[in-house]
Amino acid sequence: MDIIVLQPDTADEEIRHILKKLESKGLKAHVSQGTERTIIGVIGDTSKVTEEEEAAIRVMAGVENVVRILKPYKLASRDFKKQTTAIDAGLGVVIGGKKISIMAGPCSVENRSSMMLVAEKVKEAGANILRGGAFKPRTSPYSFQGLGEEGLQYLAEARKKTGLPIITELMDSRDLDVIMKYADIIQIGTRNMQNFRLLLEVGSVNKPVLLKRGLSATIKEWLMSAEYIMSRGNQQVMLCERGIRTFETATRNTLDLSAIPVLKQLTHLPVVVDPSHGVGKWDLVAPMAKAAVAAGADALMIEVHCNPEEALSDGEQSLRPDHFAKLMQELKLIALAVGREI
Amino acid sequence: MDIIVLQPDTADEEIRHILKKLESKGLKAHVSQGTERTIIGVIGDTSKVTEEEEAAIRVMAGVENVVRILKPYKLASRDFKKQTTAIDAGLGVVIGGKKISIMAGPCSVENRSSMMLVAEKVKEAGANILRGGAFKPRTSPYSFQGLGEEGLQYLAEARKKTGLPIITELMDSRDLDVIMKYADIIQIGTRNMQNFRLLLEVGSVNKPVLLKRGLSATIKEWLMSAEYIMSRGNQQVMLCERGIRTFETATRNTLDLSAIPVLKQLTHLPVVVDPSHGVGKWDLVAPMAKAAVAAGADALMIEVHCNPEEALSDGEQSLRPDHFAKLMQELKLIALAVGREI
Amino acid sequence: MDIIVLQPDTADEEIRHILKKLESKGLKAHVSQGTERTIIGVIGDTSKVTEEEEAAIRVMAGVENVVRILKPYKLASRDFKKQTTAIDAGLGVVIGGKKISIMAGPCSVENRSSMMLVAEKVKEAGANILRGGAFKPRTSPYSFQGLGEEGLQYLAEARKKTGLPIITELMDSRDLDVIMKYADIIQIGTRNMQNFRLLLEVGSVNKPVLLKRGLSATIKEWLMSAEYIMSRGNQQVMLCERGIRTFETATRNTLDLSAIPVLKQLTHLPVVVDPSHGVGKWDLVAPMAKAAVAAGADALMIEVHCNPEEALSDGEQSLRPDHFAKLMQELKLIALAVGREI
Amino acid sequence: MDIIVLQPDTADEEIRHILKKLESKGLKAHVSQGTERTIIGVIGDTSKVTEEEEAAIRVMAGVENVVRILKPYKLASRDFKKQTTAIDAGLGVVIGGKKISIMAGPCSVENRSSMMLVAEKVKEAGANILRGGAFKPRTSPYSFQGLGEEGLQYLAEARKKTGLPIITELMDSRDLDVIMKYADIIQIGTRNMQNFRLLLEVGSVNKPVLLKRGLSATIKEWLMSAEYIMSRGNQQVMLCERGIRTFETATRNTLDLSAIPVLKQLTHLPVVVDPSHGVGKWDLVAPMAKAAVAAGADALMIEVHCNPEEALSDGEQSLRPDHFAKLMQELKLIALAVGREI
Repeated sequence: MDIIVLQPDTADEEIRHILKKLESKGLKAHVSQGTERTIIGVIGDTSKVTEEEEAAIRVMAGVENVVRILKPYKLASRDFKKQTTAIDAGLGVVIGGKKISIMAGPCSVENRSSMMLVAEKVKEAGANILRGGAFKPRTSPYSFQGLGEEGLQYLAEARKKTGLPIITELMDSRDLDVIMKYADIIQIGTRNMQNFRLLLEVGSVNKPVLLKRGLSATIKEWLMSAEYIMSRGNQQVMLCERGIRTFETATRNTLDLSAIPVLKQLTHLPVVVDPSHGVGKWDLVAPMAKAAVAAGADALMIEVHCNPEEALSDGEQSLRPDHFAKLMQELKLIALAVGREI
Repeated sequence: MDIIVLQPDTADEEIRHILKKLESKGLKAHVSQGTERTIIGVIGDTSKVTEEEEAAIRVMAGVENVVRILKPYKLASRDFKKQTTAIDAGLGVVIGGKKISIMAGPCSVENRSSMMLVAEKVKEAGANILRGGAFKPRTSPYSFQGLGEEGLQYLAEARKKTGLPIITELMDSRDLDVIMKYADIIQIGTRNMQNFRLLLEVGSVNKPVLLKRGLSATIKEWLMSAEYIMSRGNQQVMLCERGIRTFETATRNTLDLSAIPVLKQLTHLPVVVDPSHGVGKWDLVAPMAKAAVAAGADALMIEVHCNPEEALSDGEQSLRPDHFAKLMQELKLIALAVGREI
Repeated sequence: MDIIVLQPDTADEEIRHILKKLESKGLKAHVSQGTERTIIGVIGDTSKVTEEEEAAIRVMAGVENVVRILKPYKLASRDFKKQTTAIDAGLGVVIGGKKISIMAGPCSVENRSSMMLVAEKVKEAGANILRGGAFKPRTSPYSFQGLGEEGLQYLAEARKKTGLPIITELMDSRDLDVIMKYADIIQIGTRNMQNFRLLLEVGSVNKPVLLKRGLSATIKEWLMSAEYIMSRGNQQVMLCERGIRTFETATRNTLDLSAIPVLKQLTHLPVVVDPSHGVGKWDLVAPMAKAAVAAGADALMIEVHCNPEEALSDGEQSLRPDHFAKLMQELKLIALAVGREI
Repeated sequence: MDIIVLQPDTADEEIRHILKKLESKGLKAHVSQGTERTIIGVIGDTSKVTEEEEAAIRVMAGVENVVRILKPYKLASRDFKKQTTAIDAGLGVVIGGKKISIMAGPCSVENRSSMMLVAEKVKEAGANILRGGAFKPRTSPYSFQGLGEEGLQYLAEARKKTGLPIITELMDSRDLDVIMKYADIIQIGTRNMQNFRLLLEVGSVNKPVLLKRGLSATIKEWLMSAEYIMSRGNQQVMLCERGIRTFETATRNTLDLSAIPVLKQLTHLPVVVDPSHGVGKWDLVAPMAKAAVAAGADALMIEVHCNPEEALSDGEQSLRPDHFAKLMQELKLIALAVGREI
């Protein structure tokens, strides 16, 4: 049911026009005359009223506002599925259960030897998923853009050596085939959260998708993007908070940890947090990682680099392996304190 | 020249390590000991210092901050080219001169007859470029997604009839060929402002590009995206302000008109304003269109629909042809008042 | 009328508990069972339902959401009073009619001679109200804090000489008496928009009040602050947009000119725009002043200083008298183009 | 030391004018000609260069930018004082040590019996400071505004009974005497973070001050407000994060937990977090309280009400005593996990 609020002094003819419109859509209406406003309650299956139809009503003479009662997403909604979805990333790793997964590795795969080294280091420290980018979205055309398939091969080799499944970013639908060939989890980056064509593509494959929140996306829009993927059949979606844009400049972004409990209420999909991008400075990563676990995150994604001074991207926010190993110990204690494990 | 600010009490060894690093990049350094901070002035062509190299320095022991003096974009910069770029859209239309261009038409091409009708109406009212979307980015997977090539054919037919060049949005690099076949100006939408692969694609073609500002993009990031396109050779870029995301909910977005004079200082590229998306409500469009002209815009982009109540997208913010015709008369007066014409 | 949306599967007992609560407040309710949600329409004079009572309902078991239909402000609302309020500032100056008022002068009164000089200059150029601060809110305790009453005396002397009414800021209720003695219009600054005690104070006096928008205030909150003043009896309130805080750093704030047409719909109070604080750089002031007039502002407030290099505050955003005089000529043309005059 | 960046092609005369200006302020300058920009390094004690003087330089012909190297606050800075300040709230409670303090109680004191009851409940659960408002800032003039001194008397009685020190908000300098008579800690609310006159007042008294972050205040501005208080002599200041305003509407505000580690680097003042205002919904408070402790907060402030359905303010975000008691148990485990105690 939706509610149409009328302007004061709406003419009867205008009201009749609105009612006729609703009728033409197969909807019934109940008019209530209040002391200061008249409202129309729309009866019937309003979940089928599209955005366009809603907008068309908003624009009609006499209409002050339209209030939608139902959420615009369905498959992603906790109403639709009560139990938290557990996502199988392969090689024995499941995201969304009691165990909190830790995805770690470099921002971008830079060369074979450094990839193998960091992979062993994060495995040793207790990470259970390996991250690394082969196609990199960079704000400057003059910056390093990733190794492409060569990078994916190094990731696969590191997987073979460590036994850890790998996650890597898909930036363009033309790369889907090559990404499918190597990745265990497909990452959709912040800048592509509303690249709707790309969402439909990964909605049609049979691989888990990690959907990062857009830089200024509301939680509702984020869930609509998950819905896009799920509407094509792929239900293995996890949501990754990575900081939103605010006026604050002391951090790269503002990590919105309240998104964790909000999502836990609204959706059954697992929630991942990326503190590295959230804060953008390596010495702020540890406290925010701990906070994310305390707030209920199902997984973390953390950038680790053996030599941040020489990193080709995001060196500023990468942990060295020794710092990461120390953090893992601390995270285990927090996980225990909230009844989880790492 | 760039500036490295050191933390108080930085060890001499740390300073030597930083200087060595700079030297290895072919840069010279000048150390100045102040009363409260020591700073290092970096001498040489620091415009070649990449983001990565800057980040690598930030992360070094002893470094408190790195201040870059030069702007990160070059080709787009007013320093690089003093004179405002005039862009030839074909059919006698030039954007960036004394005459202010008006791009008008429906959000999306819905069918042949409505497209032809609205095209004639906006031409009659004085618009000189026709807009219309064939591939539509929609936040819900259950909404109308555009007619595809069929829509482009109707646009081309409308161009033939009215003599107006057409602008339409490219959403996916796989559609580039078909868009090139029909469009006079290629629009890159808000959600794709940082779809870097797509930017490189349109940077390689020989057609004007209208680059919309991202929903939460800074002006600097926006210019970096223009730089992406220009770095591939295509210099025919115009920038379109269409509202940014803020906390305010009374309007769909907050139209940032101060971006106009800021861009006029920073870049030689023409500036377009889209008040329809900026405010999201048709009855707020006229005052903001007038304000945009008064503030110095080189062109406007306005949504017009013959029957907003029946629009398949953005009906809420579309003007009816009669309102648009009235607005055109008002805009002409404002243009005169600021020494321009429409 | 308000709407209470219930969670799916709300127990009958919970619904009865809610209905009983409403009844205890003297309200009637109409329960409608939809296919996916049950809603309760609240009937009666819900304008008397306070925020607390609303919050109390939100927190009840079974409640998913409460939707309020009526605006929370009344006296400030265009529903309450159709005609735009015209405010008499004395000395023949009226704000809110066909004529657009221009308030000009220095950020702060610095000394007698510079105040007299700039007053004559802005009068000559066509300003009809004189601005100047005697009590200055400064972000650093180590900055110039204003001349206090001495500054007000210089303002009064300048009024005598030029015949222009004066506007000055009240920062603390303890200064109300001295401000009342000198000012023609009392300014409530951005940082005091929600200093509710101060609002009640100026609500009890008989002098026009200019209420600046808070740095991150929604238009609704701003109107609630106007309501605070008006609830005490003083109906002579004007609203001044001066920029809101966003992520953009190229300008000091983001001047939200769309607030002008939005306010024109929601309220009968006159709308003033302060482009100087909005952009924070003198060479961006002129285009934004012109845009504000084009968008329908009833008055502008512009900082002018005879020697910005020596200004004790806001030199960066102050116009020199010659620039201001040129701008006044340009503004007159824009005013004519929108059917107003200056 | 500060840096002045010149525009390309600045005339020699302009440079001489700038140097003369610096000299007149007692500062020396070092001019460095780079390949693309000339910069002036300002030598001497630039910490005495006020905002005004900086602005005056920015506005000079030929100046492109001024970069300040030093932080604008001193007394609040970690550079100035290395060790975290421990604040004695009386009755054996110290904020800023190993033990994390928990401030709990109702938003506003509503009557004697409910105040006494909730005080006992929070004491029982392990809170060590009692909160309650007697003067309430409310966005509507038609809402409950607090009991005034009567409320303070009930707080004092509750302190006597429970042995817990009390914190309460000061809204207006005219109430300082009465607040001093009753409170152990003076709270400066969000809307008064930049009420500079009020800051100077509490800077002159000998009582701890809790300074809440403004709704859209940067961390730098917040520290400047702490500096205001400290500049008058009162060094007992703690900083309380309570959510900032962003575009997200799913929560009342966005709780910026990354402010905790940022502040730990920048300042020696203890950091408090108020998750109740941060999220605005009672069922999101617990996860964010746990996250705040994990991120390193020195104290929490939590709203507890025995009957949220009947609360006169903030019922929506108040915990019931049983929920609060459960949360305290969980917080103790998190505190242990990060080497603290509660």
